[in-house]
Amino acid sequence: MAGAATRNRPETREPIAVHAIEVRARYPECDPMGVVHHSVYPVWFEMGRTEMLRAAGGSYRDLEAAGVFLAVVHLEVRYRRPARYDDVLRLETSLLSPGPVKIEHAYRLLRGDELLVEGRTTLACLDRSGRAQPVPGTSLAPTAGQPGTSLAP
Amino acid sequence: MAGAATRNRPETREPIAVHAIEVRARYPECDPMGVVHHSVYPVWFEMGRTEMLRAAGGSYRDLEAAGVFLAVVHLEVRYRRPARYDDVLRLETSLLSPGPVKIEHAYRLLRGDELLVEGRTTLACLDRSGRAQPVPGTSLAPTAGQPGTSLAP
Amino acid sequence: MAGAATRNRPETREPIAVHAIEVRARYPECDPMGVVHHSVYPVWFEMGRTEMLRAAGGSYRDLEAAGVFLAVVHLEVRYRRPARYDDVLRLETSLLSPGPVKIEHAYRLLRGDELLVEGRTTLACLDRSGRAQPVPGTSLAPTAGQPGTSLAP
Amino acid sequence: MAGAATRNRPETREPIAVHAIEVRARYPECDPMGVVHHSVYPVWFEMGRTEMLRAAGGSYRDLEAAGVFLAVVHLEVRYRRPARYDDVLRLETSLLSPGPVKIEHAYRLLRGDELLVEGRTTLACLDRSGRAQPVPGTSLAPTAGQPGTSLAP
Repeated sequence: MAGAATRNRPETREPIAVHAIEVRARYPECDPMGVVHHSVYPVWFEMGRTEMLRAAGGSYRDLEAAGVFLAVVHLEVRYRRPARYDDVLRLETSLLSPGPVKIEHAYRLLRGDELLVEGRTTLACLDRSGRAQPVPGTSLAPTAGQPGTSLAP
Repeated sequence: MAGAATRNRPETREPIAVHAIEVRARYPECDPMGVVHHSVYPVWFEMGRTEMLRAAGGSYRDLEAAGVFLAVVHLEVRYRRPARYDDVLRLETSLLSPGPVKIEHAYRLLRGDELLVEGRTTLACLDRSGRAQPVPGTSLAPTAGQPGTSLAP
Repeated sequence: MAGAATRNRPETREPIAVHAIEVRARYPECDPMGVVHHSVYPVWFEMGRTEMLRAAGGSYRDLEAAGVFLAVVHLEVRYRRPARYDDVLRLETSLLSPGPVKIEHAYRLLRGDELLVEGRTTLACLDRSGRAQPVPGTSLAPTAGQPGTSLAP
Repeated sequence: MAGAATRNRPETREPIAVHAIEVRARYPECDPMGVVHHSVYPVWFEMGRTEMLRAAGGSYRDLEAAGVFLAVVHLEVRYRRPARYDDVLRLETSLLSPGPVKIEHAYRLLRGDELLVEGRTTLACLDRSGRAQPVPGTSLAPTAGQPGTSLAP
């Protein structure tokens, strides 16, 4: 499935913006193995995107109220080491490319210096009825000099 | 991130086994857009794997009791169309390759004839302390002639 | 908090209808204690209500499409014994009283003959803007002679 | 179900300690009605208990490592007004009574001055095999003069 789509991705592409948040693993996010269930990380990625947008002065809630919906059309996650209950983690979200109708982000989840999980998403910009529409002019990430560009959560 | 890993995947590889289950979308699995949240599909993929194993006469609960843990190390999902609340869906799980320490599955989620979501996972086989161990001899999927090989849920 | 509200409940009240479904505990519904997390049972209760309505020929999805929203305004759960991963459970849902604007249900979750969890909910009937409205004439449960009245899942 | 148990609760009982945290409603915590699903609040209550314990210098993770498990045996929630996506909420957790084997907490969730949800839980203290054991001497809440006694998150 992934072949063609990922082959052409310039992996060395510079992010346009990076934003970091802190996440603490909740008890019911962990499974009987005692580690965070693999389906939870995409929820945290979404929080990373939301806070990156907020740091840029925007709000996903306001976007939806204005009829702009961002739907995940592709997700990829590489799990290197498990996060555990009550861990305090640092999620770095990078905005890679806001194209005309699609937006790409990459994610790195760290516990201290240890890289636990890497991810990547592609969002499509949809209208209220689910049809693709251009990404609005509203910036989706902090620009230089704004608070969110700092990597500090 | 994905580049090197996916480049060598023979996408035309024949599945060793295919198993199908029926899933109905629950209310809290849906988000304010009225569609199934993208983090839910990996939970359904896991159910597909579990039921494929059960159809082969195995049980993931028994595997864990015997000290065999299967951890997702890579996940990829392509979202084509949204599933909606109360939809009855068909999830087809294919076992692609049980390697010496890793196991690959592919997934197709359909509503009637409509393909909604495709996915792929790689599992690593771990012992109780989280170290890689060989995939046990226990078959992980139905073999020809067993009920689970049928595509009917 | 509960005092006044629960004091007047006739606990011996006969249910108007009873409907049963089968539920299998999913892996991410279980927590590091290896048991189903206590926040999951209300999700199953909702499934019990939904299937009771379906057995009566109704559909909660259709109700919402018609502008009828049923919101939980009170929940009570008594946890007696834990459900475990992969357990197949039987959830019995009883419709207690469809009042003019509120509906009460009671729940019993069993593993074989063993009673694990009991619950009770009160729903309010709301319109699209969140204001209380009368419970519609649509029956919310199977009536005598319909399939759903059987306790068999 | 609730009758006898709640009838004798002294509702005017003074809390031993109160602790507050801030919670922001996540997108997948909200359902197609656009509000936080009713099964999510118990997850937040658990976070309130965990942070109250941490403010007192304890750690639930450490308790489990020491063989002390706190299981919810009773839950009650009264939903007054819905929380919505991206709302920043204040959860006040009160420790009511740490009995010999059971612990009671009460919860109030507010958006500004508006009371949205009230809750109450009873926890049992269990050993690793699920048998009741006395609540350990470890204090479960901040004592006067410690940071956590402040209501500020």
